[in-house]
Amino acid sequence: MRTTIGIIGGGPAGLLLARLLHRAGIDCVVLESRTRAYVEQRQRAGMLEQGTVDALRECGAADRLEVDGLVHNGIELRFDRERHHIDFPVLTGGRTVTIYAQTEIVKDLIALQLADGPQLLFEAEALAIERPESDTPVVRFVHQGREQSLTCDWVIGCDGFHGIARDTFPAAVSRTYEHDYPYSWLGVLADVPPSCEELIYARGDGGFALHSMRSPSVSRLYLQVANDTSSDDWPDDRIWDELSARFAIDADWHLERGPITSKSVTPMRSYVHEPMRHGRLLLAGDAAHIVPPTGAKGLNLAVSDVRLLARGLIELHRTGSGQLLDRYSDLCLDRVWQAMRFSYDMTRMLHADPDGDAFEHRLQLARLRRITASRPAAAELAANYTGLPLPL
Amino acid sequence: MRTTIGIIGGGPAGLLLARLLHRAGIDCVVLESRTRAYVEQRQRAGMLEQGTVDALRECGAADRLEVDGLVHNGIELRFDRERHHIDFPVLTGGRTVTIYAQTEIVKDLIALQLADGPQLLFEAEALAIERPESDTPVVRFVHQGREQSLTCDWVIGCDGFHGIARDTFPAAVSRTYEHDYPYSWLGVLADVPPSCEELIYARGDGGFALHSMRSPSVSRLYLQVANDTSSDDWPDDRIWDELSARFAIDADWHLERGPITSKSVTPMRSYVHEPMRHGRLLLAGDAAHIVPPTGAKGLNLAVSDVRLLARGLIELHRTGSGQLLDRYSDLCLDRVWQAMRFSYDMTRMLHADPDGDAFEHRLQLARLRRITASRPAAAELAANYTGLPLPL
Repeated sequence: MRTTIGIIGGGPAGLLLARLLHRAGIDCVVLESRTRAYVEQRQRAGMLEQGTVDALRECGAADRLEVDGLVHNGIELRFDRERHHIDFPVLTGGRTVTIYAQTEIVKDLIALQLADGPQLLFEAEALAIERPESDTPVVRFVHQGREQSLTCDWVIGCDGFHGIARDTFPAAVSRTYEHDYPYSWLGVLADVPPSCEELIYARGDGGFALHSMRSPSVSRLYLQVANDTSSDDWPDDRIWDELSARFAIDADWHLERGPITSKSVTPMRSYVHEPMRHGRLLLAGDAAHIVPPTGAKGLNLAVSDVRLLARGLIELHRTGSGQLLDRYSDLCLDRVWQAMRFSYDMTRMLHADPDGDAFEHRLQLARLRRITASRPAAAELAANYTGLPLPL
Repeated sequence: MRTTIGIIGGGPAGLLLARLLHRAGIDCVVLESRTRAYVEQRQRAGMLEQGTVDALRECGAADRLEVDGLVHNGIELRFDRERHHIDFPVLTGGRTVTIYAQTEIVKDLIALQLADGPQLLFEAEALAIERPESDTPVVRFVHQGREQSLTCDWVIGCDGFHGIARDTFPAAVSRTYEHDYPYSWLGVLADVPPSCEELIYARGDGGFALHSMRSPSVSRLYLQVANDTSSDDWPDDRIWDELSARFAIDADWHLERGPITSKSVTPMRSYVHEPMRHGRLLLAGDAAHIVPPTGAKGLNLAVSDVRLLARGLIELHRTGSGQLLDRYSDLCLDRVWQAMRFSYDMTRMLHADPDGDAFEHRLQLARLRRITASRPAAAELAANYTGLPLPL
């Protein structure tokens, strides 16, 4: 097989890139190792920055999003049994975020792609990327039991943290940065209307809790748990009791309970691989970097990588200039490190550190108090949360 | 002896309080354990927030400050061999800071106090504070070899971190919060004009360095060193070489060298004692809280404590209402914790952590980069640096 751009991974990054390239008349093929049903059902993020919504609109993938997406004008911070609204449009000059599940984005993009191309192969597992330094890198993959080769002008690794693309970088050019956190998230989906119109980030006595939603009838809730936790340790009643305690403010507010339909424990990690380009192999999204979920930057960062990458590939296609592609890694990484910083700070500010002391707890409260008392501190949070602008 | 307000400690906090009370017609006595020469010579801070300057003006102690104080419109941040100016008036709506050494403030306040009172005893060492819960607490002290008693309506502990006032609080009411840092500061005074008009906060490859000044002919410089360092380990040439390396940006800028007249190593600590009042004993300044010097909050925090305390004592004197004094501890501590947060963050952002990893170093650079790229991030730094407003 031969294509211009070979894309490994059919998650939101790979699918959006394919869509943007296809609309610009650039030939590409997407290889996804899992089945369609699998990728359409895996639970992931659901908070979209303005720029992410714009990118989906730009490539005609926002029809359902326009109807079902929930536009949020802010978030709520809870601590010390107080609630504080952070007003994004006021603090950022009009910016908002949109709640729309990653699974729905993936469904929308797959439907478009299967309707009018470009080619998308499910159960196509990439085995190796050969000659990434050459003008014709090759992706070897297995599809329907048969090993095949995809010869490309460029290979894009959108294959996530456990993919093969990053490992193809020679050790001599790779630098990695990593940080683990002493807690995890227990995430649940529940068939119950959200108890609040906005996301609630709570620093309760027992630790962090996040109230979110997937739709007007489905709540998405998260609870800080110990790193060695199994979801079996958390029967439904225990989950609801602990969530209620962490969100507690006064007698007037209470958390609605309902049937829990999914439970899973996610560890928290920060990870960056540099550079994001080697020869004609480029990385985007989780393949190059991971953030802890506090602040919801993972999906949005993948989308901003892909927007820059699409611009670079389109510039090359139209003008023959590789200038933007040459700057791709540096431009992305500046933004990636800002998201690393924001996600780290949000995580550290809101979680109970099992190794922390009373001084650090009081610092957390001082940080939260400052955000609710200071216009520049709140504006800085809002600017990061709603998404920093693309560098170009 | 009998007085209305007994003040332990003749540093800037105790002396300023005495001055503010004296001008309001309230009788007080200041007990200072050291000699006049000693307190007028100990090297301390030198960066005054606007509110600190205002307080000194208000009590007529700013005549020399008006002439010799250096008004600064910002600071410079250096990292990655780049220099970035943070413009305080632009970011804060007109606020500035003033460089004027604490030793000079002490000299000014002592001269005023010896000229027209109130009473100030040197070499008067407080031994104990008796009956702080009663209406007539007593300070027992030794002066000129003779043990004496000072009976007061109120006792104010301005006697610093190693004073006796804090230890008089019963253990059952005291809560303490503490954090140590894995590095110290080597501070030097040098008879050489400053190499730059502004303070420079540098995150060099070898760690933190601060360029400051005491006057147009005296530079004050600081260098991050290991915790177990003695100033004997640092001959003058080594100090200048290391400072030059940490401030290095390009061939056009260089650090002026000159005779070093003083060298000392200071550990970095954050410490808070709560509450700041017990009965008729109140704490102000270092007696209640310590910040690391990065961000220069120690002296300014002592002055803001004293301003609030003077208002409370004057309110009581004029109206008989103890309302403000009852809120003194809570009002101070809100502000103290904000200064703790700011000092901690400035310290962590600018020093090389000997236990840190490459991820944390990149986070530091991302923080510095963000401050130089984002208006709200820079405004937040400027608001904290120039001083948060008093709560009343």
